[in-house]
Amino acid sequence: MSLLGRHDKIVLAHGGGGQLSDSLIRQQILPRIGGSDSPLYDAGSIELWGGRIYISTDSYVVKPLVFPGGDIGKLAVCGTVNDLAVSGARPVAMSLALIMAEGLPMDLLELILDSIGRTASENNVAIITGDTKTVEAGSADGLFINTTGIGLGRPGVDLGFSRILTGDLILITGTIGEHGMTILSQRQDIGFQSVLTSDCASVLGLIDEVLAFGGSRVKFMRDPTRGGLAATVCEIAAGCGQCIEIWEDQIPVQPAVRTAAEMLGLDVLNLANEGKVVMVVDPAWADECVKLCRAHPLGRNAAIIGSVKEATGVPVVEMKTRIGGRRIVQMPYGTDLPRIC
Amino acid sequence: MSLLGRHDKIVLAHGGGGQLSDSLIRQQILPRIGGSDSPLYDAGSIELWGGRIYISTDSYVVKPLVFPGGDIGKLAVCGTVNDLAVSGARPVAMSLALIMAEGLPMDLLELILDSIGRTASENNVAIITGDTKTVEAGSADGLFINTTGIGLGRPGVDLGFSRILTGDLILITGTIGEHGMTILSQRQDIGFQSVLTSDCASVLGLIDEVLAFGGSRVKFMRDPTRGGLAATVCEIAAGCGQCIEIWEDQIPVQPAVRTAAEMLGLDVLNLANEGKVVMVVDPAWADECVKLCRAHPLGRNAAIIGSVKEATGVPVVEMKTRIGGRRIVQMPYGTDLPRIC
Repeated sequence: MSLLGRHDKIVLAHGGGGQLSDSLIRQQILPRIGGSDSPLYDAGSIELWGGRIYISTDSYVVKPLVFPGGDIGKLAVCGTVNDLAVSGARPVAMSLALIMAEGLPMDLLELILDSIGRTASENNVAIITGDTKTVEAGSADGLFINTTGIGLGRPGVDLGFSRILTGDLILITGTIGEHGMTILSQRQDIGFQSVLTSDCASVLGLIDEVLAFGGSRVKFMRDPTRGGLAATVCEIAAGCGQCIEIWEDQIPVQPAVRTAAEMLGLDVLNLANEGKVVMVVDPAWADECVKLCRAHPLGRNAAIIGSVKEATGVPVVEMKTRIGGRRIVQMPYGTDLPRIC
Repeated sequence: MSLLGRHDKIVLAHGGGGQLSDSLIRQQILPRIGGSDSPLYDAGSIELWGGRIYISTDSYVVKPLVFPGGDIGKLAVCGTVNDLAVSGARPVAMSLALIMAEGLPMDLLELILDSIGRTASENNVAIITGDTKTVEAGSADGLFINTTGIGLGRPGVDLGFSRILTGDLILITGTIGEHGMTILSQRQDIGFQSVLTSDCASVLGLIDEVLAFGGSRVKFMRDPTRGGLAATVCEIAAGCGQCIEIWEDQIPVQPAVRTAAEMLGLDVLNLANEGKVVMVVDPAWADECVKLCRAHPLGRNAAIIGSVKEATGVPVVEMKTRIGGRRIVQMPYGTDLPRIC
């Protein structure tokens, strides 16, 4: 059996957002539920009454439930807001479904609900429907949350793999890997807890500004969550059928994250982010876009980190390393760490 | 501490769809997420571009994953379709989010996905976005599913507690308790397995016909799932502020369900249904509505089972028993059986 062939049982890597997740979705799920094999976006959409509405769903199983920089509630709202925002949609409403294990402390649930309410309100998203289920202690870990968001398309905005052209530039709105490394540090006692904070945040405001000024000069956006920057750039290359080159010395990384990753033998490119956006933009507007991002609190470390190159064969992602070498950036197979979000 | 006061920890009854679920939602959840204390409906809705869209979410944690008459996949699609349908909306799109435990057999997952695809297709609902998460074996029971559905309002249909008037009649589309008793029989070896089948089904087609002919003569609909018929009639009484009288000898119950419930000391009124609708209709049209339902395969046992009475004090539900007595029908406190759906 190939590593990407049919497994007899679900393994953790099926949920890692990498190659194995992708093969599960394309081979087992989509053919059975009427889905097409076209590129997968962060939100689905339907035409409705002359407009377009976008829908995005995510279940959150992050462990621990509260971590430096956020909690499962803030993550559940921001994650779904971000998936709509990077799709070019303006979120308007959200559903909230809780699966609670018997024994979940009410204080903790209330803290998480406060966080959900605050984050939804900050993003002007109304929580308009919900569900509560309980399961026996031992049948779920404390609390799982599903949020499904509805967003409206914006006039003049047109994002998609097909809009990406050779020469377009790749931009990231800030330093990578904080969320993944923070969750890891909380789960394993690796001694970096005091300096690591998740970047968990809504990127809606930042995207509002970029789209307001950039319009159609913004070609594509994705938030590099599970699978990290590596998964996102590999998805972009596969989606647009072109090669991508990224420049290691331009990719912003906090020193603590870099040190921790080096010590643990982890690739920062694979670490999850929860408050960052990768954008593909028109090269003539890229410097303006960086300036615009840097003027926003969530984009202070924005940088151009790569470019789109014509594919000669299979579309791949190559990285020019800091020491002047070149290496292929691979789609992560599974995940270095389950239950990151 | 009162039984409905603040618990220190989540207990199973918080997910039972009864009094304790209601108090958790009203006391802990809604005040924190910006929800109002108005009556709760099966779907939320927003005005959009001159129309109204309805959104309903449910997580499914039913155990076992496959049962006579259905499986968690069929249930997840039907449940969300039904919540939209009883709200008067026509479902158009759905999201699908899977939380899979490590070790879930791929054959079983594929069987469930086939069931999801078939049921969505039968209901003309496109699954347009999704999510997959995995958790360690022991952190979730096999598979939890969230479906969130989007539906469009229908012109001329206006359902709501405020439309219910004294004299309106209460109708149920068929026999009660099959789903609850089937799940119970699968979980406990009580010897009724061979004759019990869940009623798990989409009621969309039946509701289509009723609304097409009944229009505004249909005042309110709800599917009596968790908490059973008892919870639904109590919610209707509380929602419209009037009393309800139901007639035990008119309530259709399959003999096997009645016998099993009597043996186990369970009240059939509290048992979950997954393919039935309770309707409140204009009394002048009620007989027509029964005829219409009976002409549909899912409504063959439809019956008028009660009426709306003016409240003299607190709105309560009373049942005229088969032997001519009267008793108060109470909102179930928690649930006789967790993980029914």
